[in-house]
Amino acid sequence: MPGNTIGHLFRLTSFGESHGAAIGGVVDGCPAGLELDLDAVQCELDRRRPGSTPLGTARDEADRVEWLSGLITPVIDPALRLRSGQAITLGTPIAFLIRNADAKPSEYDALKDVYRPGHADKTWEDKYGLRDHRGGGRSSARTTAASVVGGAIARQLLTREGVQVHACVLSVGEVIAKRITDVPDLESVWNNAVRCADPEAVLRMTELIERVRAEGDSIGGVVSCFVRGLPAGLGEPVFDKLDADLAKAMLSINAVKGFQIGMGFHASTMRGSEHNKSFQGGVLGGISNGEEIHFDVAFKPPSTIAQAQQTTDRSGNAVTLEAKGRHDPCVVPRAVPIVEAMTCLVLADHLLRQRSARV
Amino acid sequence: MPGNTIGHLFRLTSFGESHGAAIGGVVDGCPAGLELDLDAVQCELDRRRPGSTPLGTARDEADRVEWLSGLITPVIDPALRLRSGQAITLGTPIAFLIRNADAKPSEYDALKDVYRPGHADKTWEDKYGLRDHRGGGRSSARTTAASVVGGAIARQLLTREGVQVHACVLSVGEVIAKRITDVPDLESVWNNAVRCADPEAVLRMTELIERVRAEGDSIGGVVSCFVRGLPAGLGEPVFDKLDADLAKAMLSINAVKGFQIGMGFHASTMRGSEHNKSFQGGVLGGISNGEEIHFDVAFKPPSTIAQAQQTTDRSGNAVTLEAKGRHDPCVVPRAVPIVEAMTCLVLADHLLRQRSARV
Amino acid sequence: MPGNTIGHLFRLTSFGESHGAAIGGVVDGCPAGLELDLDAVQCELDRRRPGSTPLGTARDEADRVEWLSGLITPVIDPALRLRSGQAITLGTPIAFLIRNADAKPSEYDALKDVYRPGHADKTWEDKYGLRDHRGGGRSSARTTAASVVGGAIARQLLTREGVQVHACVLSVGEVIAKRITDVPDLESVWNNAVRCADPEAVLRMTELIERVRAEGDSIGGVVSCFVRGLPAGLGEPVFDKLDADLAKAMLSINAVKGFQIGMGFHASTMRGSEHNKSFQGGVLGGISNGEEIHFDVAFKPPSTIAQAQQTTDRSGNAVTLEAKGRHDPCVVPRAVPIVEAMTCLVLADHLLRQRSARV
Amino acid sequence: MPGNTIGHLFRLTSFGESHGAAIGGVVDGCPAGLELDLDAVQCELDRRRPGSTPLGTARDEADRVEWLSGLITPVIDPALRLRSGQAITLGTPIAFLIRNADAKPSEYDALKDVYRPGHADKTWEDKYGLRDHRGGGRSSARTTAASVVGGAIARQLLTREGVQVHACVLSVGEVIAKRITDVPDLESVWNNAVRCADPEAVLRMTELIERVRAEGDSIGGVVSCFVRGLPAGLGEPVFDKLDADLAKAMLSINAVKGFQIGMGFHASTMRGSEHNKSFQGGVLGGISNGEEIHFDVAFKPPSTIAQAQQTTDRSGNAVTLEAKGRHDPCVVPRAVPIVEAMTCLVLADHLLRQRSARV
Repeated sequence: MPGNTIGHLFRLTSFGESHGAAIGGVVDGCPAGLELDLDAVQCELDRRRPGSTPLGTARDEADRVEWLSGLITPVIDPALRLRSGQAITLGTPIAFLIRNADAKPSEYDALKDVYRPGHADKTWEDKYGLRDHRGGGRSSARTTAASVVGGAIARQLLTREGVQVHACVLSVGEVIAKRITDVPDLESVWNNAVRCADPEAVLRMTELIERVRAEGDSIGGVVSCFVRGLPAGLGEPVFDKLDADLAKAMLSINAVKGFQIGMGFHASTMRGSEHNKSFQGGVLGGISNGEEIHFDVAFKPPSTIAQAQQTTDRSGNAVTLEAKGRHDPCVVPRAVPIVEAMTCLVLADHLLRQRSARV
Repeated sequence: MPGNTIGHLFRLTSFGESHGAAIGGVVDGCPAGLELDLDAVQCELDRRRPGSTPLGTARDEADRVEWLSGLITPVIDPALRLRSGQAITLGTPIAFLIRNADAKPSEYDALKDVYRPGHADKTWEDKYGLRDHRGGGRSSARTTAASVVGGAIARQLLTREGVQVHACVLSVGEVIAKRITDVPDLESVWNNAVRCADPEAVLRMTELIERVRAEGDSIGGVVSCFVRGLPAGLGEPVFDKLDADLAKAMLSINAVKGFQIGMGFHASTMRGSEHNKSFQGGVLGGISNGEEIHFDVAFKPPSTIAQAQQTTDRSGNAVTLEAKGRHDPCVVPRAVPIVEAMTCLVLADHLLRQRSARV
Repeated sequence: MPGNTIGHLFRLTSFGESHGAAIGGVVDGCPAGLELDLDAVQCELDRRRPGSTPLGTARDEADRVEWLSGLITPVIDPALRLRSGQAITLGTPIAFLIRNADAKPSEYDALKDVYRPGHADKTWEDKYGLRDHRGGGRSSARTTAASVVGGAIARQLLTREGVQVHACVLSVGEVIAKRITDVPDLESVWNNAVRCADPEAVLRMTELIERVRAEGDSIGGVVSCFVRGLPAGLGEPVFDKLDADLAKAMLSINAVKGFQIGMGFHASTMRGSEHNKSFQGGVLGGISNGEEIHFDVAFKPPSTIAQAQQTTDRSGNAVTLEAKGRHDPCVVPRAVPIVEAMTCLVLADHLLRQRSARV
Repeated sequence: MPGNTIGHLFRLTSFGESHGAAIGGVVDGCPAGLELDLDAVQCELDRRRPGSTPLGTARDEADRVEWLSGLITPVIDPALRLRSGQAITLGTPIAFLIRNADAKPSEYDALKDVYRPGHADKTWEDKYGLRDHRGGGRSSARTTAASVVGGAIARQLLTREGVQVHACVLSVGEVIAKRITDVPDLESVWNNAVRCADPEAVLRMTELIERVRAEGDSIGGVVSCFVRGLPAGLGEPVFDKLDADLAKAMLSINAVKGFQIGMGFHASTMRGSEHNKSFQGGVLGGISNGEEIHFDVAFKPPSTIAQAQQTTDRSGNAVTLEAKGRHDPCVVPRAVPIVEAMTCLVLADHLLRQRSARV
């Protein structure tokens, strides 16, 4: 059974391979009558774009969203006096695509029969019997661009209800930022290459990432996400709890290895008398309590590094692999908008689900 | 939209309040022709049962599974020569219930208008406008008994395919067991009250739990889960990745606050050159790679403690609450079979989903 | 993938074999705060019960609904001053069961290896490799009792919104009632054994059914269903159109062979200039238009007849079969409440789905 | 909750408005490793295309399928020696689009505030509060082009399993073809403008359609569909019966008002002794029995006619409407490939669902 759809009432179906014709998606279930700022959606995508931070990969994609359906635009009904870049949702599926302009498939010919260490090359073949080897095909993090567009639409629905979703980098390797307990200041986060809210940590993180890059290595990190303004009552126990769905959405992001909410793993060391008084993470019994939501997402270091590595090929032979493609030494700065997008998708879905909770 | 069903092809729909007539569930999608050992299912439930460990709550429930449908039993077709306690699945829904024999609703009258600290009393009311206040109603961990039965059926399907699922306690409070790197030895786990595979840690954990109980307090902990024998290829990217579905299933368990797989949060501090050589957790790119799967689940300390606590009632008045009911000082020993059950439910579903992956 | 759940937001999961321990279901997604008249639910079930019409089978089942969860009853919270037989929905799954009191499995021993003509005995084995042969197992129309209970809950949600759903018999064999164009008068329908709104036709239908029964034969018929008070805007094009979901729900009823809405098959013979002025069936483009909805459902004659019939057994041998069990000469009178129930299930689901259509 | 996805394991998500940028879809769940003949898919679409029959509308669309993802094409892996127009499915979502080349939105300006009789203009607004008025927006039958592409992919999966799906016109208005009892001969069907298998009826149908067109009117008709080679065992009682899902798929097609299988409505007039010996339609108890499947689909006459009609506008004023756009006097010839496509989508889904029926 296919797994490329997320959400029930507000749902995104994602498609596309890293080096195919295009990636994209279909948002079905976005309520009709929502004024969409399409430029703001593009803006979110730009934040995820390779090249949006000097610490990222050199792959250069314009990544322009092309809208295919589901919208009333200024040209359709001039009487609505929409400005350019503005649209109104029709309640029908909103389809969009992003062309893979910078696809250089031939660069990947050498990888056709080789399984890169730490990558999903072999598991993908284990599953389907074949794969698109170019740039990881559909296992590439490039597919998250579709999630970012879907999440940006979800965000505009949430904004209308007064919900804010913001993430920032908490740690890079051993460098940990001062924990903030509130939605981070956007300016301070987006004006630095690391996307961390602690200026002092930014310096050390930047230095670490540059050093790791110079060594041809990579490094992991943690992204924190904050939600403010979410109404109490969201979440569907016993299986579709709000935090359960957030955990799933986060673990679906490439390279994520851990999720914690509220006191998280630290809670396992606490006494009840102490924990009852501490921050619960904004969710109790799987349902939002109206307070700020806060959770952390752990990213492993990127598997592609500029060092010779031992691996195997399709025939089981040992192979020495030296990565040539373009890659990030650390994904967490670019992961920030992806964490936000997946969060928005989950929250928009639960916002609509809650509409059926009472007579 | 309701959230009481888990799984797509192998699916459990759960029902029941802690102190209503019964809890139970319907397993739909269990393939026909599976020989079920009903005694083994009861056995799994017994392991979760209050009273199964001397460290648990005093609530005493016989918790006998009553089977309602979906099975061919010895009496239906004697020619099949099934022994008592054995059945064959029909491919139709397997419905079961567990009576709430020890329900003492009147004990909870005092809680009708009070929101217990750390509990889901208020969020449940935020969501639905009303709640069954008796023992937490459906927010009670008692509902996990239905999951354990569903998981026990799933396990028998997995066993047939050579898949083993075993969990054990990794830590209680600050007491951490020696990390094992393999499926724990069942005997050693089930023969001690803590359900930990490290005999030395068992002593210190037991001592800690007893001390916490004496103080009228509670304590958190971590459960580790191991899966062996799972075929490569399971998991449905990009959104229904195997680890994403495991994370969701774990976060749906009461009191869970964190999930990590493979190197987990520790991976965020590692270099790629190092991480590529380390244990990946049995999942790459969201798909099983045929190696052992290993993940950790963090539990907060139980919110119900035998100390006076400040809280509020429905009218917003401050109230001092002194818990009277029966409760666990530490849930992780009894959580072990629940973690296993939820894991089995996820794996059985993905096992069936994989049947459609190729022509 | 299992098919025992209907609906998305208001959903019924059905379980049970004709001669197993019980049949029943779980209604998940019924909004919280709905005052339920449990006696009225029982009443609906009584209308479907064998023996509710003198023209039906002799099987005698008390068919008492046993409620397991999801309800606040008078005993739980006396302050709510609910009367006996009254309850309030909690928003959690409402599970119920109906014991199979009159199950006489041994009567069916002779059928264990024989495929009854016109029945699903062989296809069920083709699908699952085995079956519960007693009274058709899960292929029995007895399973519709669970649908009737689910539908009766749905109806109470609909009634609250001013929606009325009523069906009656349009034809039995060649005897066709005068077409009514409005919701039938309940008294006139329920006070006759045929459940037809045309008193003159009732006489001829009764006479026909009695004659067919005397001949050891059976006869088909058509049930018409009327919905009044449904708000405009329900239905989810392009695939979950309101009439498409109604068609599916009707074809899921045992013995149904046809569905038509509005002018139905007759529309295929009409000119557009004529059809545009005629009754559209209450649905345009798959969405309700606020007018009365009207559709017809065709039932084949029951396959079980009291005549010797040629068939085959499991080994492919020719067998002469003489039915002994209890059976209806004509199902349409008892099908009336089932058609209503399935209609209510579909409408309640779409009523909730519509809540997400607009910002 | 959105309704633009059909199928569970083999699923099509459809998008697009009649006069927007494009229509298209995403097929998720097509098994990996299927050799796809893309030219054959285009061929199916050409059969649905306006202009494919001289009896259709004058709207001229090239309707070229553009493939976006999910396929290995010759250029990606030359070693596979695929010929041009051939591809292999990756198991990932297959996204495609069809540009709306001939969209002339300004033609529809006059309809912005008018509700066309028999059309879904008003119900669409009742639902969403707004609509894309151009050519009916998403209520247009143009959206079925996406279904035809999805169905054509499904057909290639079915062909591999030996399943054939063919439809033909049974009647136009009062002109009824000789009933055939077998899959129609393709040559004879596709070589005539009416797509009817009875040459004698073709003449009278053609004559009738031309006469109706000359009168500025339209006419309805019935399409019959035949499935041969389907394995026994498909269908998921009690709610997702094979015929129930077929009924739903057919009723989701624009202008469909009725569905019947086997003896259909005629069965309601039959005796059991007679019906048991007659053709059952290839489905018993909702499960395929391995015999040929046969069902009929009734289409109303197109609502758009070249005559002045009375209707209302958004403000409730009476308006006289004279249709200018391009339209079919009779949809059934062009509906034939759509009926086939929807049938293929249902069957492919159930083919995969059956893979989980047994251990």
